[in-house]
Amino acid sequence: MAPRRTITGFSNPLVKFLRSLREKKHRKREQRFLAEGLRLLTDARESGIVPEMLVMAAGREPHPLLDALEEAVGAAGGEIVEMDVEILAKVTGKDNPQAVAGVFAEFDTRLAGIDRHAAPIWLVAQALRDPGNLGTMLRTGDAVGAGGLILIDDCADPFSVEAVRASMGAIFTQKLAVARWDEFITWLRQDEGQLVAASLRDSTDYRKAPYAAPCFLMVGNESQGLPHAYEDACDLRVTIPMRGRADSLNAAVAGAVLAYEALAHLATN
Amino acid sequence: MAPRRTITGFSNPLVKFLRSLREKKHRKREQRFLAEGLRLLTDARESGIVPEMLVMAAGREPHPLLDALEEAVGAAGGEIVEMDVEILAKVTGKDNPQAVAGVFAEFDTRLAGIDRHAAPIWLVAQALRDPGNLGTMLRTGDAVGAGGLILIDDCADPFSVEAVRASMGAIFTQKLAVARWDEFITWLRQDEGQLVAASLRDSTDYRKAPYAAPCFLMVGNESQGLPHAYEDACDLRVTIPMRGRADSLNAAVAGAVLAYEALAHLATN
Repeated sequence: MAPRRTITGFSNPLVKFLRSLREKKHRKREQRFLAEGLRLLTDARESGIVPEMLVMAAGREPHPLLDALEEAVGAAGGEIVEMDVEILAKVTGKDNPQAVAGVFAEFDTRLAGIDRHAAPIWLVAQALRDPGNLGTMLRTGDAVGAGGLILIDDCADPFSVEAVRASMGAIFTQKLAVARWDEFITWLRQDEGQLVAASLRDSTDYRKAPYAAPCFLMVGNESQGLPHAYEDACDLRVTIPMRGRADSLNAAVAGAVLAYEALAHLATN
Repeated sequence: MAPRRTITGFSNPLVKFLRSLREKKHRKREQRFLAEGLRLLTDARESGIVPEMLVMAAGREPHPLLDALEEAVGAAGGEIVEMDVEILAKVTGKDNPQAVAGVFAEFDTRLAGIDRHAAPIWLVAQALRDPGNLGTMLRTGDAVGAGGLILIDDCADPFSVEAVRASMGAIFTQKLAVARWDEFITWLRQDEGQLVAASLRDSTDYRKAPYAAPCFLMVGNESQGLPHAYEDACDLRVTIPMRGRADSLNAAVAGAVLAYEALAHLATN
């Protein structure tokens, strides 16, 4: 079994540490992030990723998935922390005595960690600001069998509690890279790879476009879209039809419509 | 010009009224909802829908779109209310002196208001709990030229500030209906209409399914999916491939992938 600590005071430094992981600057300093919920932690475990620390209420009801998690944390040399329900509520922000949370080491997010030949599709998001959209893109990436998500320029933090939650576990299965545009485009052009943007300019019907693996599907910022210069650097610009008043889709929706279209082409060709 | 009121005190009953519209029970009682931002209010105006009351900061900088809005509110017999920036911040929850908000009468959301022959596609959501997902489905509906969104069972409130914002104006262009399942299925079967569910059971590849207008595309609750009995009542069950660990997509994403597929079939057939 893993070493076990019990926390009974609100002012314990560990409580402060756990709460601090809700803020980006503390996550960056600690290089750690929080994932909450038995399902999410089980997804992580089944993907071979175990928290350094598992946090739960003292006297929590037993659950076979929790037993499996405790065992995995112990085997990996991690720590189990129990605390009063009231203190746990301060950590998780939820008044749920069944809550569990895990502290994970942040993943390596360098482009060098991406093997582009490992998957036919990769998602790319530029200046994506909403952590829910970011997590949803990870979830969609998992669903289409993409390799991962590459975040260009100033995106939301993929390790925020909101993004991790919206990913529904895909944060643990999809590769993640964070890069500036210049760095990304230089890396991309070092080997084969088709860069595709959803765009309204000078573009091909997204149903008829010649998608080719490894295919990098890029969507832009929620309110600005992609910079023109980035669109110009793409190998393919594709248009998703807009039959109504609006001229754009939600960014995560646009990425998903494009990803499923590319999947259908790449799976049959 | 519209009648103009200036509010200088935090305790003014109108301030309390405006703040109360952030809560569902007050919206239901008043049959009114809030939409915020010049862009959203302009979308409304361009769709022929004008707020009963337009709220902004006293001494706000002029803007041609705001002028057009003020004129439309005046022409429709509405009211314009100006208030100190600090009071406006209390109403909108944002510290933005350029903020504007409009109070709208809630729309008729009875099924009887839906003309199913007015559009080839209709979206249906069952027990959709997240207002962001709900608004995103409205936005997608606008983009695919759907007629509107039908909300089955206990969904998030489509008139919440979050849903209205996520709809990006589609709340003003898409028809909206709210009904219990029994009521919906009875209404549906009174005339032609194909009910399609995204499902993993006994179903057809979503790329090869025989979509037919008027086509009602239904997605289920974020964590439970659709009840089996509802799936059984469908004319068509279609499967979106899942190539990864996860067994489902975000509900708004699933609806969008399905809606764009149906659009491609219905547009070419």
